[in-house]
Amino acid sequence: MLGARALRWGLPARRAPNGARPQPARIPLCGRRLGSLVGHSLWAAGLQPQRDKFGGVTVHLAQLHAPDSLDQVTFQRWLQESVKQWRAEGRIAVWLHIPILQSKFIATAALQGFTFHHAESDSSTLTLWLGEGHSRLPGYATHQLGVAGAALDVDTGKVLVVQDKNKTTNAWKFPGGLSDPGEDIGNTAVREVFEETGIKSEFKSLLSIRQQHRHPGAFGLSDMYIICRLQPSSFNISFCQQECLRCEWMDLEELAKTKDTTPITSSVAKLLLYGYREGFDKIDITMREFPAVYTGLFYKLYHKELPDTYKNMTEF
Amino acid sequence: MLGARALRWGLPARRAPNGARPQPARIPLCGRRLGSLVGHSLWAAGLQPQRDKFGGVTVHLAQLHAPDSLDQVTFQRWLQESVKQWRAEGRIAVWLHIPILQSKFIATAALQGFTFHHAESDSSTLTLWLGEGHSRLPGYATHQLGVAGAALDVDTGKVLVVQDKNKTTNAWKFPGGLSDPGEDIGNTAVREVFEETGIKSEFKSLLSIRQQHRHPGAFGLSDMYIICRLQPSSFNISFCQQECLRCEWMDLEELAKTKDTTPITSSVAKLLLYGYREGFDKIDITMREFPAVYTGLFYKLYHKELPDTYKNMTEF
Repeated sequence: MLGARALRWGLPARRAPNGARPQPARIPLCGRRLGSLVGHSLWAAGLQPQRDKFGGVTVHLAQLHAPDSLDQVTFQRWLQESVKQWRAEGRIAVWLHIPILQSKFIATAALQGFTFHHAESDSSTLTLWLGEGHSRLPGYATHQLGVAGAALDVDTGKVLVVQDKNKTTNAWKFPGGLSDPGEDIGNTAVREVFEETGIKSEFKSLLSIRQQHRHPGAFGLSDMYIICRLQPSSFNISFCQQECLRCEWMDLEELAKTKDTTPITSSVAKLLLYGYREGFDKIDITMREFPAVYTGLFYKLYHKELPDTYKNMTEF
Repeated sequence: MLGARALRWGLPARRAPNGARPQPARIPLCGRRLGSLVGHSLWAAGLQPQRDKFGGVTVHLAQLHAPDSLDQVTFQRWLQESVKQWRAEGRIAVWLHIPILQSKFIATAALQGFTFHHAESDSSTLTLWLGEGHSRLPGYATHQLGVAGAALDVDTGKVLVVQDKNKTTNAWKFPGGLSDPGEDIGNTAVREVFEETGIKSEFKSLLSIRQQHRHPGAFGLSDMYIICRLQPSSFNISFCQQECLRCEWMDLEELAKTKDTTPITSSVAKLLLYGYREGFDKIDITMREFPAVYTGLFYKLYHKELPDTYKNMTEF
């Protein structure tokens, strides 16, 4: 049944009752009968491959004491012998972390079958699958996240809309943009609305989620696009001339009826109109916050509002 | 206002009315008064840097006719001169795509300030920001997506739950796992439920969305975790022994009340119970499909169901 399913790699075990985090075992190479001069020299040079509980081995080239003195041939011989040994041990994968200035070793590893898992900033990570069948290593992030804000002035029934400067069709849409790394959905909406239009607002709920694959603006990966309902707290528009052609408070019913918009904006305008007339509880996907098990941070959960009688069935 | 906002790079302009897609201008290096022997030799070697309408330049090292004959010193001199020229031209960024077997050029570029934007499989992409202030280049994907399925047998009021094998606490949860690249949310839920439990099912709606940052299982990036409501069409459990310790059809009210579960599972169990008793329309975030502008594919939009009177205000 496991089939093509990715393993949940790198997820640490839950904390022990005393709060301690289990540490991965660090087993030095030389204690594993590598036995060759190459192995010993790399060990002496600082490399300490680590076995993990998922059957993998991790090598950090940042551990090298003097990377410039390690030549590619020596590294190539060491990697070849090591992979042979790990395979014999029954290890199913190798993770190889390479600082950007040591990138000469990437091609060496590639010649032995390693491929990029991911890279960011000043480091890359390569992997080699040693197990049976196709690799079941978990992939890297697959989605970028864009968030827009529908700021509705409930006193006037007008909603804040913009037209992008760089588009040939003048379609009205809600202001928005890409989330910064680590930024909460609602914060992106509020920030983007302010940056594009000068309007201050408060997050109220999620209204819609769109998933689109092979997105040209996401380097061919998937795009998640979320529209939030916002409550504006300022009303004087001062829009970003670099990004927007026009920006205005538009009557919500007009936006719901116009053809000068995108299908998503039109759908969400109708949804918002429905909520405005018949109660936002009909449309809101509201937010609750919970403490995260692993990180000590909080995470946010969004779903339809739950009546108190249900909420209080158990306490967490 | 533009501030820290990422540019929407790489998003092609909409098609012209005749359906033609605008092509980026390919301007050969030698036509740009690079003027040096280094420049000419690299141009002769096949490199054709491309200017884009966002103010960037893109270089593909895969264009090199004989990459092995290009030494790092020559490449270093060419890159240095080129960057100087692009800066003088007012270009704001350089994108450098490097095939994995040519990775020796990565460190060369890094010494001139390039950093990894991303890498996957057999290629890496580095960038250098030449504009003012902090880089406004769009980042790479920031989220992994996990999806679980709450398969509720409406005839019995029982829901399918599992206990993971590799966890120290035996918490009941809905079966699920990571989305494959390009896989729709509902398809992940149906696939994962089948792989883990042997139960066949059909996607009905989204129930909840959770966003969590700095996730250990997401290589420190963000994790989006969505729970779907599924309609089971088979009922004999045959669960994956590698992944699950236990798997059963549990009374939904029991799951909503038990403390042997996670806060998210408990919340969604209560939500599902509310929907089961008072109508799924109270909890469902339903799906609609639209044609995508850029790719010719379809995308899926999820929001609270919209009454027909609203849906039909305009047609798309």
